[in-house]
Amino acid sequence: MELAISTAEAAEVVDVTDRVEAAIPDDVRSGTCTVFSPHTTAGVAVNEAEPLLMADVEAALSRLVPPSAGYRHDEIDDNAAAHLRTMLVGESVTVPVTDGSLSLGTWQSVLLLEGDGPRERTLQVVVAEAGAS
Amino acid sequence: MELAISTAEAAEVVDVTDRVEAAIPDDVRSGTCTVFSPHTTAGVAVNEAEPLLMADVEAALSRLVPPSAGYRHDEIDDNAAAHLRTMLVGESVTVPVTDGSLSLGTWQSVLLLEGDGPRERTLQVVVAEAGAS
Amino acid sequence: MELAISTAEAAEVVDVTDRVEAAIPDDVRSGTCTVFSPHTTAGVAVNEAEPLLMADVEAALSRLVPPSAGYRHDEIDDNAAAHLRTMLVGESVTVPVTDGSLSLGTWQSVLLLEGDGPRERTLQVVVAEAGAS
Repeated sequence: MELAISTAEAAEVVDVTDRVEAAIPDDVRSGTCTVFSPHTTAGVAVNEAEPLLMADVEAALSRLVPPSAGYRHDEIDDNAAAHLRTMLVGESVTVPVTDGSLSLGTWQSVLLLEGDGPRERTLQVVVAEAGAS
Repeated sequence: MELAISTAEAAEVVDVTDRVEAAIPDDVRSGTCTVFSPHTTAGVAVNEAEPLLMADVEAALSRLVPPSAGYRHDEIDDNAAAHLRTMLVGESVTVPVTDGSLSLGTWQSVLLLEGDGPRERTLQVVVAEAGAS
Repeated sequence: MELAISTAEAAEVVDVTDRVEAAIPDDVRSGTCTVFSPHTTAGVAVNEAEPLLMADVEAALSRLVPPSAGYRHDEIDDNAAAHLRTMLVGESVTVPVTDGSLSLGTWQSVLLLEGDGPRERTLQVVVAEAGAS
């Protein structure tokens, strides 16, 4: 299953939890749900979708990986920082499925982290059944 | 399967390898074991459970994400740094299962990284069978 | 399935995409492929295998986790920085499998990030079938 997501900003966090939840097939009761970004400048993470925290995420990533720092890859394509941030954040998450739903904690959401937008992005969702252990 | 873990410090690394190993059902011989933290301020990682290294991990995370740095989320809940560290470390790991056991390397352990303790934490363990390839 | 990889440098990025692809069993059409490093000083990531970007990755990791910074673990074994970098990058990736192949994006490759080479490394590949959702 693929989800299509349009991002609106150069750097942006999009809460995709509801769309991932809707992609779980009805016949899977327990297992895992992997959400994978087939992009090198947009990652996926799980954390709290609180707007002030999302501003902190952007600020922290900008501090850890400054937008411009003489990156060699910028000679080819001016987006090295977005690649590096995506490698730090990761391009996928795997969330347990219990009783047919994402087994997220109270404060957790599945987040797309756009690093080189605005773009049309896709996320791949793979749900694997596993016996409840 | 859920594991209950009581953490004792604000920031702490807990080796949960034995408890994860014990959660693998007897009838699964090969596949994957996903360990998922349903928390936004405590992550999961795999590395060496060597006490001096664990002190280095804490120091490195404090340097990369200082405890206080004017985070906006701290206006709501005074734990933005723990959220950000958890996003860097990740909230889950997936480890191969071979011959019914975690297929960890010699120096690897499964680690819970508490970022906002002490707390009662849980970890979700999902074991999915896969034919040995 | 295990892949054997010889690294040639202290720090090095090795594109292992073709070897992972070849490890997918013929009878699996859709599911997930987990690539796991059983090492504590060599990680696995997915991103673009562009040589200048790989130099940027090395420079960024050296800035985030300097080679020597008074690490306590260096009293035991002089490779704390490699442990810390591996924890940031992660020791595994999970990639969807579609139509019997890794479902990577156009610019994505599976990368081994050596942090304490040269060494003989292995990667574990586990492919789990899942119904196409």
